[in-house]
Amino acid sequence: MLMGHLREPLNDDQACGLPAALEVMGERWSFMILRAAFNGVHHFEEFLSALGIARNILSNRLARLVEHGIMKREPLPDDRRKIEYRLTEKGLDLLPAMLTLRQWGEKYGIGVPSNPVLCDARDGQPIAQIAIHAHDGRLLGPKELEWRDRADLGKPADPAAQEPRPHLNMLR
Amino acid sequence: MLMGHLREPLNDDQACGLPAALEVMGERWSFMILRAAFNGVHHFEEFLSALGIARNILSNRLARLVEHGIMKREPLPDDRRKIEYRLTEKGLDLLPAMLTLRQWGEKYGIGVPSNPVLCDARDGQPIAQIAIHAHDGRLLGPKELEWRDRADLGKPADPAAQEPRPHLNMLR
Repeated sequence: MLMGHLREPLNDDQACGLPAALEVMGERWSFMILRAAFNGVHHFEEFLSALGIARNILSNRLARLVEHGIMKREPLPDDRRKIEYRLTEKGLDLLPAMLTLRQWGEKYGIGVPSNPVLCDARDGQPIAQIAIHAHDGRLLGPKELEWRDRADLGKPADPAAQEPRPHLNMLR
Repeated sequence: MLMGHLREPLNDDQACGLPAALEVMGERWSFMILRAAFNGVHHFEEFLSALGIARNILSNRLARLVEHGIMKREPLPDDRRKIEYRLTEKGLDLLPAMLTLRQWGEKYGIGVPSNPVLCDARDGQPIAQIAIHAHDGRLLGPKELEWRDRADLGKPADPAAQEPRPHLNMLR
């Protein structure tokens, strides 16, 4: 990212996971629906009133989330005409991404600390700021990251690659 | 989120940091521009060719990122007619959010492991999966989280709040 001589293929949608994630979440209402689902909203009418969203937009976005395997439609056991929308494992795995965006928005977007606060259920303390860690748990800043070709993982750093390279070091 | 009797105000854009973050990043081209910036792209013409983006869209999105304080325009010292676009601290702080989305996309969106791989510059090992941790570093899953009112941070859990509550436990 910062150091090194590699760069991602910046115009290739297939080679990076980011555009795939954005396709699902980069739309405001889809994100708001996911947030409500993480807050325990499961029924169409409940999304409707909790979000203040138009019926046709809600219907469209829920269908798309189901299509992407992020939510699933489940008939209620006691009344199979009633449908619940629930997060799949793929959907639940979006939680870290949503919280990271939220923490950034809290830091820069809104003036007051938000309430309620997401906490560890065990001790009621707020969760830590979500950050980038090395495989052994060390905290990593943007300057401590570099792109590596898969073939070069774990190899000692190439001294030549550590030289400042114009336009490739974002903090230069 | 999962347990507990609280819920976020789901239709209130002001009380949560998520909509603020989405306003900036929830648009595909803005995100692609940020990704290029993190890869060391700084010049208008370079964004243009690296991203395959239309000139007017690039111009519009860069202006918006500058307006939001995520990027800054800087004249080059040796030729002040030339402008560089650089990430501000607020922009650099988006890196964990971008990487979390990217890791999700890699897990679910694309069939092959992406290349290059983002690594710790010190040992060339891939960074860890970005996750939710407690203040003391313990890994937290979605079931181990709860919303707390700011007034109740750090207090022992309310036994009554641990009872199953219909529609408030997303894994029920």
